[in-house]
Amino acid sequence: MPKGLDGVIVATTQISKIDGTAGRLIYRGYDITQLAGVVPFESVVHLLWTGRIPSEKELIDFKSEIADRRSISPSLISFLKTVPRDANPLSVLRTAVSILGLTSSSSKGEDAAASSSPIDTGTSLVAQFPTIVASYDRIRRGEDPLEPRKDLGQAENYLYMLTGRVPETERARAVDAYFVLLADHGLNASTFSARVAISTLTDVYSAIVAAIGTLKGPLHGGAPSLVWDMLSEIGEARNVRPWINKRLESGERIMGFGHRIYRTEDPRSKILKSLAKQIADPKVYELAVETEGEARRILQEQHPKRALDTNVEFYSSLVLNASGIPKDAFTATFACSRVAGWMAHIIEQLSDNRIIRPQSEYVGPENLSIEPNA
Amino acid sequence: MPKGLDGVIVATTQISKIDGTAGRLIYRGYDITQLAGVVPFESVVHLLWTGRIPSEKELIDFKSEIADRRSISPSLISFLKTVPRDANPLSVLRTAVSILGLTSSSSKGEDAAASSSPIDTGTSLVAQFPTIVASYDRIRRGEDPLEPRKDLGQAENYLYMLTGRVPETERARAVDAYFVLLADHGLNASTFSARVAISTLTDVYSAIVAAIGTLKGPLHGGAPSLVWDMLSEIGEARNVRPWINKRLESGERIMGFGHRIYRTEDPRSKILKSLAKQIADPKVYELAVETEGEARRILQEQHPKRALDTNVEFYSSLVLNASGIPKDAFTATFACSRVAGWMAHIIEQLSDNRIIRPQSEYVGPENLSIEPNA
Repeated sequence: MPKGLDGVIVATTQISKIDGTAGRLIYRGYDITQLAGVVPFESVVHLLWTGRIPSEKELIDFKSEIADRRSISPSLISFLKTVPRDANPLSVLRTAVSILGLTSSSSKGEDAAASSSPIDTGTSLVAQFPTIVASYDRIRRGEDPLEPRKDLGQAENYLYMLTGRVPETERARAVDAYFVLLADHGLNASTFSARVAISTLTDVYSAIVAAIGTLKGPLHGGAPSLVWDMLSEIGEARNVRPWINKRLESGERIMGFGHRIYRTEDPRSKILKSLAKQIADPKVYELAVETEGEARRILQEQHPKRALDTNVEFYSSLVLNASGIPKDAFTATFACSRVAGWMAHIIEQLSDNRIIRPQSEYVGPENLSIEPNA
Repeated sequence: MPKGLDGVIVATTQISKIDGTAGRLIYRGYDITQLAGVVPFESVVHLLWTGRIPSEKELIDFKSEIADRRSISPSLISFLKTVPRDANPLSVLRTAVSILGLTSSSSKGEDAAASSSPIDTGTSLVAQFPTIVASYDRIRRGEDPLEPRKDLGQAENYLYMLTGRVPETERARAVDAYFVLLADHGLNASTFSARVAISTLTDVYSAIVAAIGTLKGPLHGGAPSLVWDMLSEIGEARNVRPWINKRLESGERIMGFGHRIYRTEDPRSKILKSLAKQIADPKVYELAVETEGEARRILQEQHPKRALDTNVEFYSSLVLNASGIPKDAFTATFACSRVAGWMAHIIEQLSDNRIIRPQSEYVGPENLSIEPNA
């Protein structure tokens, strides 16, 4: 078996298709280039869960359903105030969602399939993720968390809760598009762990908590801030080439390049680049473009056969930073989007479930005896 | 691909081997029949993590290392006091471990591989799982949690913390053997989700939290209390046959029978049966034996080709009940054992890691357009 299940198909899905050769990502039949910046994130959540873009009326209802559920309880806020200020925001989100699951009816040993519908739980989770992330972010900065606003869209409200200001339209639209672009991506590790968990008919919270913990890993969602660190370190255009050369000479990776599945440019990266151009500080944007070009050239010389284009993390970091999101909340922001895909996969898994229980091949010793003379 | 990855080998392991045909379970070369009731649980933890049964000196050191780490912080106790009394103990354990992970150095975005060693974190987790489970159990009954005792072994201290009394040797030994028998079992769903999570190089707490949430599912660890419910409902020997017939006629399952991997008797079940004989109320034991016999006969008539022996849950329920463990803490008790195996697999995965990221086959629509006339 290929290590890490590389290329091994373990499930069929109707949710998303990654065409790594053509550089396309499709949600339920729609190319993401048709969706990002065109329909709001809430529409895409509806699409991922039901297979349909909502009608205008359905979208209004779904948006207000989400907006109505954004508040988190005073006891959860109190808990967040007890968390050390240097905790990882993903660990905080993982814990907060686990706390939400303590009082859910579906956490009391009932079958997930039999308890309140996964779409219902999912709607609450999509609504509350940004509230949790923004509340902890304000608390750790010594500020009071803000009440969510019902009159704002999902991305807009998230930025409002983080910064205390209703964002400019351009920024809200960029983050909304980011949410759309990151919402699902096949059986990535966090989505897969959500499916493995829910396949035991555990509660939805347990599956989502598993996914958050998995997303946290630097090989999955936990590294976008490193791109930002890299650009900050490079500082200005003339440093790009020597910096990259030095980095590669010492055997280190350049952050934000390459993907296991795309053999060409990640389609999300293209759109994020254009969003970054719209909202990022022009100097930062130019530095990023310069770095992209140089790194590509150098990597191509070194590995002519490998496709080493920018991945989704590279320009994400510019979009998120320009929107006022602190770099160590980048991955938690990613989770605010990806929870839509996790829920879609949980719903799909439950619709035709079989426990996911693979086998291992034992390659250790046999027939040992604890008493050598026995 | 077979649904649920049935029979699909996704990894090699040196930790445990399940020989479903011969009905054997082997840990690191040792048949579990050589271990359960012979060496203490702590020895088996050492074996699973290092591949070696500890020497007498090593065992003393390891036992005292575990005993020293059993206490949980006053703030975690305070948190447990805020949890609703009817929460699922597995959800509480999942949340408590997530809280422990908030303050761990390995949760601050560092690579799991680079942070404090997984064996070190694992030792703390093995030590603290029983403390968390017993503390919440006492709190929900309105009693104060007890300080763990350093002079007691792992099973003995667990029963002490639950009941407030040092258990009789027989009961402590039975639970110790139960801990040994349940400590690992190949790539079951919870172990697999721990491996998927840690393969992203997330922190150990995230991987363990994923595993707890997965174990909670009724198709995995979340059902042993149902065996107890069934026996209570049957009540006495003369009701066995009519009860089973009625149950099967209405298309329901008999709890505690059959396993996806064993084609013969689960070797753990045999040992648990003999432990149940030693410590359970003789009437309950006889009822269980009667139920086993009748159910086997009836199931065999109906499905002559299927092996439908008792599985690990059946006699576990008698052993745990006779030890004073409340039935809705059975799965949390299971977790106090299985955390040893989860940690072994985490250590093994990290020793030669590649992110576990399988693929799905997209079977949904293609080329949809959000503007039908476009």
